[in-house]
Amino acid sequence: MSLLCGSGFSQSEGLLSENVVFTTEIAEDATPAVLARIRQAKKYPISEIKFEKGTYHFYPDKAFEKFTRISNHDDVLAKTAMPIFGMADLTINGQGSTFIFHGRMIPFLIEDSKNITITNVIVDWAEPFHSEGLIVANDEKNNSFDMELSKEYPYEIRNGQLIFVKEYYEHNLGQSILFDPTRNAIAFNAEVYTPITATRNSTFQHNLDKIKYKYKTDPRSKVEKVRGKEDNLKVEEVKPGTVRVFNHKQKLPPVGMVLVCKGDQSLNRLAPAFRITGTEGFNAKNVNVHHAGGMGLIAENSSDLILDSFNVTPSQGRMVSTTADATHFVGCRGKVVLKNCTFNNQLDDATNVHGTYQEVMDIIGKKSIGVRMGHAQQQGFTIGRANDTIGLVRLATSFFPYDYLTLKSTEYINGRYQIISFNEDLPAGLKVGDLIENVEGYPELLVQNCNISRNRARGLLISNPKKTIIENNYFSTEMEAILIPVESSHWFESGNAANLIIRNNTFQDNQHSGFNRGVIRFVTDDENHNIAFKNIEITNNKFHQFDNLILEISNVDGLLFQGNTITNSGSFPILYPDNPAITVNASKNIVFKKNKYMGKAKQILMKDELLPSLKFK
Amino acid sequence: MSLLCGSGFSQSEGLLSENVVFTTEIAEDATPAVLARIRQAKKYPISEIKFEKGTYHFYPDKAFEKFTRISNHDDVLAKTAMPIFGMADLTINGQGSTFIFHGRMIPFLIEDSKNITITNVIVDWAEPFHSEGLIVANDEKNNSFDMELSKEYPYEIRNGQLIFVKEYYEHNLGQSILFDPTRNAIAFNAEVYTPITATRNSTFQHNLDKIKYKYKTDPRSKVEKVRGKEDNLKVEEVKPGTVRVFNHKQKLPPVGMVLVCKGDQSLNRLAPAFRITGTEGFNAKNVNVHHAGGMGLIAENSSDLILDSFNVTPSQGRMVSTTADATHFVGCRGKVVLKNCTFNNQLDDATNVHGTYQEVMDIIGKKSIGVRMGHAQQQGFTIGRANDTIGLVRLATSFFPYDYLTLKSTEYINGRYQIISFNEDLPAGLKVGDLIENVEGYPELLVQNCNISRNRARGLLISNPKKTIIENNYFSTEMEAILIPVESSHWFESGNAANLIIRNNTFQDNQHSGFNRGVIRFVTDDENHNIAFKNIEITNNKFHQFDNLILEISNVDGLLFQGNTITNSGSFPILYPDNPAITVNASKNIVFKKNKYMGKAKQILMKDELLPSLKFK
Repeated sequence: MSLLCGSGFSQSEGLLSENVVFTTEIAEDATPAVLARIRQAKKYPISEIKFEKGTYHFYPDKAFEKFTRISNHDDVLAKTAMPIFGMADLTINGQGSTFIFHGRMIPFLIEDSKNITITNVIVDWAEPFHSEGLIVANDEKNNSFDMELSKEYPYEIRNGQLIFVKEYYEHNLGQSILFDPTRNAIAFNAEVYTPITATRNSTFQHNLDKIKYKYKTDPRSKVEKVRGKEDNLKVEEVKPGTVRVFNHKQKLPPVGMVLVCKGDQSLNRLAPAFRITGTEGFNAKNVNVHHAGGMGLIAENSSDLILDSFNVTPSQGRMVSTTADATHFVGCRGKVVLKNCTFNNQLDDATNVHGTYQEVMDIIGKKSIGVRMGHAQQQGFTIGRANDTIGLVRLATSFFPYDYLTLKSTEYINGRYQIISFNEDLPAGLKVGDLIENVEGYPELLVQNCNISRNRARGLLISNPKKTIIENNYFSTEMEAILIPVESSHWFESGNAANLIIRNNTFQDNQHSGFNRGVIRFVTDDENHNIAFKNIEITNNKFHQFDNLILEISNVDGLLFQGNTITNSGSFPILYPDNPAITVNASKNIVFKKNKYMGKAKQILMKDELLPSLKFK
Repeated sequence: MSLLCGSGFSQSEGLLSENVVFTTEIAEDATPAVLARIRQAKKYPISEIKFEKGTYHFYPDKAFEKFTRISNHDDVLAKTAMPIFGMADLTINGQGSTFIFHGRMIPFLIEDSKNITITNVIVDWAEPFHSEGLIVANDEKNNSFDMELSKEYPYEIRNGQLIFVKEYYEHNLGQSILFDPTRNAIAFNAEVYTPITATRNSTFQHNLDKIKYKYKTDPRSKVEKVRGKEDNLKVEEVKPGTVRVFNHKQKLPPVGMVLVCKGDQSLNRLAPAFRITGTEGFNAKNVNVHHAGGMGLIAENSSDLILDSFNVTPSQGRMVSTTADATHFVGCRGKVVLKNCTFNNQLDDATNVHGTYQEVMDIIGKKSIGVRMGHAQQQGFTIGRANDTIGLVRLATSFFPYDYLTLKSTEYINGRYQIISFNEDLPAGLKVGDLIENVEGYPELLVQNCNISRNRARGLLISNPKKTIIENNYFSTEMEAILIPVESSHWFESGNAANLIIRNNTFQDNQHSGFNRGVIRFVTDDENHNIAFKNIEITNNKFHQFDNLILEISNVDGLLFQGNTITNSGSFPILYPDNPAITVNASKNIVFKKNKYMGKAKQILMKDELLPSLKFK
């Protein structure tokens, strides 16, 4: 390997492992050299890959490609220079280098590995997967606004539709949200301006009722979702670099704001920075992800993932960092740790932790079932490993499993359909339409000393029945800072919450995009009085909110709210002056102790009839 | 397997192989039962699968799915009930059954197998991948035509664009051609009416020159081909079931004709009826393919494929059978036989036989090169097996290889890029930009007693340097009956022609769509005087053509044209009255003997200066 400036060997588990060093000689396109060495790793193991400090470009043209289904992303032909498949005890050390990716690539594709460490590296893209336009005029009479597009955002107008054209990629307006560049964050009350309405109902359809499906279809699938819809917006070029958008359905975005667009929802999650699956032991330390066409890190069916100073922040003057969640964990177990991280300006949550519900479609013999994946972006997901305990769930009856089986095997038939066999006979009561979840596929979660702010959507979205500690963090998010859901009808993300501690955090002006929702919120899709959440502690936090609603408690058994301080920040006008600070519904064993309320709500606590003597203290 | 009406066992190579029988009990959706048994075939081998005679439906919902790259098709998530992977000595006998497929499926997906026989089966689709509209009016003043769409073709209009909506699929107008229902064939002079012009240049582009690619891109790739283009046609609904199409750029299609559409070229080849790769020994006997969303049969890197009474014909009153070629063979060797076949009404050639050129992109060390696949639909193609002889080609210099190496291994990097290693050192003269082809990947081809008519495009497109016999066939095709090319710049289909015999065939009114081309045509992409074709015999054929041009000879060394009869059929008006019957260019050793000319050409033979004494006899 003439492109290596040096290499040494180290003994690891009896195998002679090499310490590989790449120099900036390969910087122009690092893909072929890095890939070539990693592809030899089975024969010549590697313990460390170091990069001489510098800026390395990675192009997809000579990258390794593999059809890959990624949870909460699109199915992609993943292209990578670093296919970390079946490797163990490997450290990749950028030594402060910047890796610039070009087009549809996955920088780190880690599968079925053990003890992988990535450190001292900055990940960015030459051209982002989203686009940003400065609002330079609006015209109420013609219901139009003008947007200026810098040379970072080449565009084309096709039949009145604005297309942002990139290296190896393009997107239309699609999903959008308004940023305020003076605050470098989502615009206050953004929900009255955006999203822009990309589609409307189409007018002419004929004989579509003649199309009959034998089985259930997904109205959100790529094939079905476009039916009955057409483009709503009409775009004209006013002068080169300035376009006028007609047909906006909400309030016109104010001059000086930045409209961020990322194209159609079913196409725009294609290039996460880190994808980890089937891996035991992953460490990221001092990693800066400036961009990704999807999430910063998506981990599935993995265990013991420690992210320390794993930061998601924008670069190159962009409003936006990653175009979806900063991090996301599906079916992960062992420890999941996020500490000392900054998650800024991404277009979705800072993290999600959940499992996956799969729907029973067929009962096949005594021990096997056919299951259906509900969401297109969960296709092909493997529910667990042999002998995992699988819960049988009927959400209308209970948020907790009504029975348990242990997994024998899963057989992949297609993305939507798998055959799952158990060690035991199926219970007589099992019905088509029931859900299954892996009750072992949840972690002990720690979120500590993180800054979660300036982003679209939530901070933490946690469906973790195991154990969660959220402490010493700063939250300033557009929606909920912490959302604790049981969700079953859209994303099919499994899990409830138990043993959750939220302490010593600061919540600053969350929900500032204008939703009438609390800062911390417990919520179920299925509206009933069943218990979904157990053993919750919310202590010693500071809530500095511009609006009233702080905490929504629902379907909870056992919640201690103690030592919290609540003020009104005065940062923005109050949007919902009639809201209380706290609501309690369908819950029991709720305790308020030693809190300080200095907010502006006329009524601090609003509750249903179940807890007549409950008082805010 | 309770769904089997009976089964027996037979001894085969020491393994106890089962004769499986399926009854019409599974007819409603045969996919799960058939798939379940085939998936067990490794453990419980099958020698025969019989179907009780009946009509069986196959749905994709519970079908086996696999990401599959298919030559001359799109990359697809292939769904099939019959994944014949690594099987041997298997017969599937439909006993006259009809298999009706629903949506995006591949009925027979055969990989890495030996001696597979498919017999007595009819393949059809519930809803076709193309659409047909009857022209009911046209209006020269407004430059529009009206089209009536029966209930077989549900549609929607989105932003003035007509979308044909199907089970699991939809397509726009895209590729189109005019059929004449009174003749049940492509309309005479169709080229003046169709294709309809689906796209035009877009007007507004800004900063697209800022997008720089490091490497060569494919302007025909899905990402690149849409740039600078927008929809040209505008469609309105006149009344339910009748649409008016504006902005047609050619002559308005006459009332009574049928416009056939199949959507965009880069999306519409997704569901061939048979896909065979890496297989030694394939027999199809008494198979009727009424439809496919792509080719009737596509075979790659396989050997000894015998198609006897393998018919491609339309059903259910449709104008169209398969939406692409009836059959197609890439890199196949041993014998390829098409006998007693009818290939009618498909939307592309009756067969193609060729190899694949791959372009040298990188010279990697002494024995390895990086190669690029030129066409998007050849991505991932494997050039051959270990020790195959690979020719190095520089088409500007010669149509034949300038040197040879033997293959050691191919390493798949991505769809466009592979690393190929040879047993020998690379020759010093090898240059980036040269092509490689597998000179062993061609068959002994026999096309005998076939009826090739009523279809779009050519009859046979043959680039086979080995040996080809074409005898006792009937041809009546829209373009060339037989096209013999060296092609390098669009499809990257390798091969020239040698040892080709065309005898005792009848050619009836080919080229009737109006191209100014011969019925049999030798042609090269690279215009020069080099020899591309050798040892050709065209004897005892009958040409009953409405127009003059019969034979175009170019770059040929050694051609005998003897005992042929040429008449003018009078079926249609002559389109090119000044054409000769035969042209000869850049050729030598051309012999005419004992032919009868009764046509209407003023000049029978037109030739260049190389053969001053050559005469038609």
